[in-house]
Formats: sequence, C-alpha cells, structure tokens
Amino acid sequence: MRTVETDQDIQDMARGAVLLGTGGGGDPYVGELFLRAQMQRGRKAKVVDPSEVDDDAFVLSIAGVGAPPVLIEHLVSEKLLLRLLARAEAFYGRRVDVLISAEIGGANSMFPLALSAISGVPVVDADGVGRAIPHIEMTTFSIFGVKATPGIVMDELGNVFTLETVDDRTAEDAIRAVTGTLGAMTYCALYPMSGKQMKASAVLGTIDQTLQIGRVIRQGRERSEDLFGDLLAYLGRDGRLATILFDGKIVDVTHEMRDGWHWGRATMSPLGDGPDVFTIDFQNEFTVARLNGRTVTIVPDLISVLDRETGEPLTGEMLAYGQRVKVLGYAADPLLRLPESLDVLGPRMFGLDEDYVPIEQLNAARQPEALPA
Amino acid sequence: MRTVETDQDIQDMARGAVLLGTGGGGDPYVGELFLRAQMQRGRKAKVVDPSEVDDDAFVLSIAGVGAPPVLIEHLVSEKLLLRLLARAEAFYGRRVDVLISAEIGGANSMFPLALSAISGVPVVDADGVGRAIPHIEMTTFSIFGVKATPGIVMDELGNVFTLETVDDRTAEDAIRAVTGTLGAMTYCALYPMSGKQMKASAVLGTIDQTLQIGRVIRQGRERSEDLFGDLLAYLGRDGRLATILFDGKIVDVTHEMRDGWHWGRATMSPLGDGPDVFTIDFQNEFTVARLNGRTVTIVPDLISVLDRETGEPLTGEMLAYGQRVKVLGYAADPLLRLPESLDVLGPRMFGLDEDYVPIEQLNAARQPEALPA
Repeated sequence: MRTVETDQDIQDMARGAVLLGTGGGGDPYVGELFLRAQMQRGRKAKVVDPSEVDDDAFVLSIAGVGAPPVLIEHLVSEKLLLRLLARAEAFYGRRVDVLISAEIGGANSMFPLALSAISGVPVVDADGVGRAIPHIEMTTFSIFGVKATPGIVMDELGNVFTLETVDDRTAEDAIRAVTGTLGAMTYCALYPMSGKQMKASAVLGTIDQTLQIGRVIRQGRERSEDLFGDLLAYLGRDGRLATILFDGKIVDVTHEMRDGWHWGRATMSPLGDGPDVFTIDFQNEFTVARLNGRTVTIVPDLISVLDRETGEPLTGEMLAYGQRVKVLGYAADPLLRLPESLDVLGPRMFGLDEDYVPIEQLNAARQPEALPA
Repeated sequence: MRTVETDQDIQDMARGAVLLGTGGGGDPYVGELFLRAQMQRGRKAKVVDPSEVDDDAFVLSIAGVGAPPVLIEHLVSEKLLLRLLARAEAFYGRRVDVLISAEIGGANSMFPLALSAISGVPVVDADGVGRAIPHIEMTTFSIFGVKATPGIVMDELGNVFTLETVDDRTAEDAIRAVTGTLGAMTYCALYPMSGKQMKASAVLGTIDQTLQIGRVIRQGRERSEDLFGDLLAYLGRDGRLATILFDGKIVDVTHEMRDGWHWGRATMSPLGDGPDVFTIDFQNEFTVARLNGRTVTIVPDLISVLDRETGEPLTGEMLAYGQRVKVLGYAADPLLRLPESLDVLGPRMFGLDEDYVPIEQLNAARQPEALPA
C-alpha cells in the first residue's frame, strides 16, 4: 500500500493517462483537479499492488460513462461518488475492499483514485485494458471471464439503475442508452470480482505506467531535451516495439458526433516539402494509422499523438489544423494480443476492413523504406 | 372477486380494449390467446372491484413496453411473467396483493389478466388512464402522485434492470431506451402503490368497460342490426358525449416508424360524392380528428375507427386505402379532463399546436352544419 503523495505525481499520472487514452477516454483533467483539492485537505488516494490483494477480496470497478466532450464538461462529484459506493455495497451485500479502473486511458484513470481519496478504499495498480476502449465488453475483465454485471448506474440528479444482463454487450448498449437519455454523464459500478479474478483478468501495473509516462515527459521538458527518446525507451520496455510513426503537421481533421461516438480522421504531411500522407482514424480512440495508405499501427496496438515541441499528449477532439505533432505507435499489453482478445477488440470490431497485424510486423516490412522526416 | 369465466368474455374484453386503444396500445390478440389457453387448463383470471381492495394492500402495475408492431410479434411468455412477479416481490420486499393495468387500451389490458391466471393474484377493475397513451408519465397514477419507480424491466433473454428515477418522464425515457437496445419488447413492473393510492389515482371500472364494449359489438353483429346505436349509448353513459364523427372510406394513409413511435395520418372521404375531407393524426394512438380542417375531437378525448359493417375496431397500423369505416368520438373519463391531467396528456404534449377543447364543445359548434353522410 502506498499513497499518492504529491501534486506532481497526480499531474504526471493524468498526463500519462491521456497518452494511454490514445486520443479517447475523456480528459482526466477534472479528476486531476479533484484529487489535488482532496490532497490539500489531507486526503490521499491509496494504491496497492495486485500481489497485495487477497484472493477473496471484493474488487469493484468504478467508471464514468459519456462521450469525451461531456466528460470534460462535468466536474467530479464527491457526493455522487460516495453515494455510488454506498449503493454498491448495499446492492452487492458486502463491503468493497479494493477499487479498480475499468480503463486506465483517460478520465477513468482518475475516478477510482478520486473515490479512494474520499473513502479510504484502496485502488489496485491495474485496470481492465491498459489503454482506452469505447466498449464495456472490450475489457480484459470481460474477455477473461468477469461479467460486467450485476452493476449500478447513477447520475447526479439521483437516478439509480441496476442491471443484470445476459452478456456484456447488452450491458454496454443499455448503459449507453440510459446515459444518453439522461443527457449527460453517469457513474457506474461494474465488474464485481474477487481478488483472484482480478489477478487473472486485469492488465497489471498500469497506474504506475501512467506515473512513469508522465514523469518522462515532464522531466524531458524540464531538461529542455528531446523527451521522445526516453519516452520510446519506456514504452518499448520488455522488448515491445515503440516507434515514432510520423513527425509532421496536421493538414486536415474531420470530427463527427454520431451514435454517441466521436468519429474522425486526422491527415498529416511532413514539416518540409514531401509527398508523404499520414492519416489517423478515430472512433473516440485512435484506431488505425496509415502512411501513404499502408497501415503502420492498428488496434489494439496503441497510437498516441503528441505536440512535437512539448510532448503534450493530445486527445482526438484537441486535434486541429496546423498542429505540429509526433505520432507514436507502440505495442499493446500481451494480454490484448491473444486471439480471444482480438476477437473482441481487433480492427473488425471497429468497423475496419482489415485484420490485426502486430506493430512490429507492420514496421518490419517498412524497414527498407526510410522512416519519414 | 369474480373470475373471467368464458372464452367469449375474453374475446369481448380484447375487442373492447382495441376500441379503447384509440388506434394504439398494441394488439391484445396474443394476450387473448394466452388467456384462452390458460382457461382450457382451468386457470382463470380473477378480477376484484376497487372497493374490495384494502387500503394497505400492495398494488403493482404490470405492462409490456414496445412499439405496437413489436407487441404483436411477441407471444406472451408464462415463464417471463412469473419471473417478473417473483423478481418484483423480492425487489419490493413484499408480496403483491393486487395487479393493475397501466393502460386498459390495447395489449396492456391483457398482461395483468394473463399473470393473474397463472399466479392467482387478482387484478383490480381499474387502470391508469382509461384508454391508451404513449408515455409512462401520462398515467393518472403519475398525475395523481404515484411514482412509476422503483420499478423493474425484464426481457425474455434474462436481462433484468431496476430503476429509481427522479421523475416519471426519466423512467419513460430510460425504459424506452433500454427496450430499444434489447431490440424488442420488455415487461415492466411499475407504480408500486397502496390500495388507498390506487383508489385515489386510477380510472375505475375499465376492465368492465372493455367487456361491455366488446359485448355490445358482438351482440349487435349477431343480431345483424346496426350496432353503432348501442355502442354510442354505452360510450355516452353518464351524460358523456359520444358521436359518429365521420362515415366514409379511407382514401389515403401514411405510416412512419420514427423515434420508436408509429406516426401517421389517415384521410377519409364520404362514401358517395361529396367535398368533405376528414383526417385523423396518430402517434401510436389517434390524437386529433378534423373535418375539413376543423378539429372535432382531440386528446385526451377518444377517437376510435371501426369497420362500418362489422363494427370491428381498427388499430392505426391496420388502416389501409379503401377501408369503409365509421369514426367515433367520445369523451374521456372526467379524471383526464382535469387541468393537472391536461398539463401532461393534453394536445401540446403530442406536438399538436392547439389547446384541448372538450368534444361536446367542438361538436356543439358544429350543430348548425349537418353531420356528414
């Protein structure tokens, strides 16, 4: 058990969560502000390693649901988070021992930490996907046998829903529909599980990843050095491929809100003259990056867009004409690359008409060409 | 307490429910078949008068939710109805003493009777509107202080939702959204109330109304006499106005499924030559009837379309070019004409750009003209 001790750590974690959000997941900024305010009152979020969680502990995931622009507009409500915990404990008939993030990428990295700070319940250093994803049934919890329901959905107005669904896709559809009718954002308690189930299904160590990523970016920026080398070294740990896919400027970006999702495509050109055309498609998250029409990274491998000077990671809705960016591609956690995972969060589940190919294969084939810019 | 004894009674009640459905409410036919099958097995629905219900009895409304065409396609599931009752009793923590229909018009007249036949729980001779309506918050239960939730929504697949909403409009939106994502039809248990609350908020005697209406139509048909005189006499009881608004043929009808509703307009001409144009607009239910552009009946007063030979009441989706019909207009139950009711189910709540005027005023003004055909 450790506590999140400093403002700087929280800022680093939030920045790292944006990067792992791969363009989506909602902005963790309001969660960051909430945590920093709690810390000023002496309330600190507690984080435990997965190994510290008893096999029979009751672990529960807390998440906010809403389109990313909505997540940004809503402040974190202390009262609602505490009510959610109280209602969850009454609903499940037992005390919640450990909280877990459903997805570490974006805003949902912060909500369990926020509830931890005000309730004292620790958060385990793990999550249900190691990045951001648009659907509940795409978590490794779902993929490796932990059902999303029975669960609870609540909003700030006092509406409370419980759900028991035959599968997690139905839970996704129902929660999305209910959240849509409520017009804004809901908080959910989902994936009731044992400590043993958590260890078997979660992507481990991902809170620490957000902290390390945020630190590398901040420290590189403070030293006025190129921070991308250190960042690639961290993202490429354990022999994973991490590479700069493109270095250039955004020349076109389309945004569309449709069916509750944020869809779009960003098109980039090299900074100097050059014929290369680089595109990134997104459905909340960045799903596929292509250089001159050829795929160079595809879900569930990760694509992150950063300001090329400051290293600030950018979300999909922040992308705009003229921005100078570096695009990083890096390998997803090995859990997400298993066949049973690809069945659920592979490219075809995002409407893409191609199969998953690991980033290292896509970029090995690219080796004979020079990397652009 | 009495039981529904004969096949004929059930058929009469179903036919009467279609008439009170004023074009919507879903076809009670599958419920009728279900009840007749139960009767063959010796299981009879029980009906109690409102005066027989103890003030502290626990009264619960059972309803099916779905667009009318969907209601028709789905058979009544004995297993699901019993599961709904069992889950409701567990959820509310008490035995259900009496069932009540949320709306007597259409399919929801039959579901409480169906559950009564298989469970033995009696149904009170009353409902929440005395006709059919498209929204949960339009019931007299809602209008006179009984909240729709806490409630339960279930489907045939085994999905179970509970909801506690801050108002009944939110319950309506959430149930509609959840039903839409489940792709079909759901059964709900809603409006938990005491016997005392039931007596203060329900429209009373409406199961008996369906039986009487069905009988008048059947007996008139059996005698090969004009049945409309008897029908108007029954609908016009207690000094209410009931009249034939139009007698003619359908010359055009539009149907549209949009936002989960069945929208449309039927246009009629006199049987012989004549310049009169009669229209009926519907949003699931018939909402407004106009003769040569002038309103002659408007919600919540009732409009029913019947085959002019057989007196068979027709639903909105049954209307088709060339049908020869008589259109009846008659006064709603006095409860629906109170100002607090009109605020919720008056014309403007159906997107109509005019205020409610009682049918007797609309047709008093019409007296100088001859009634058409």
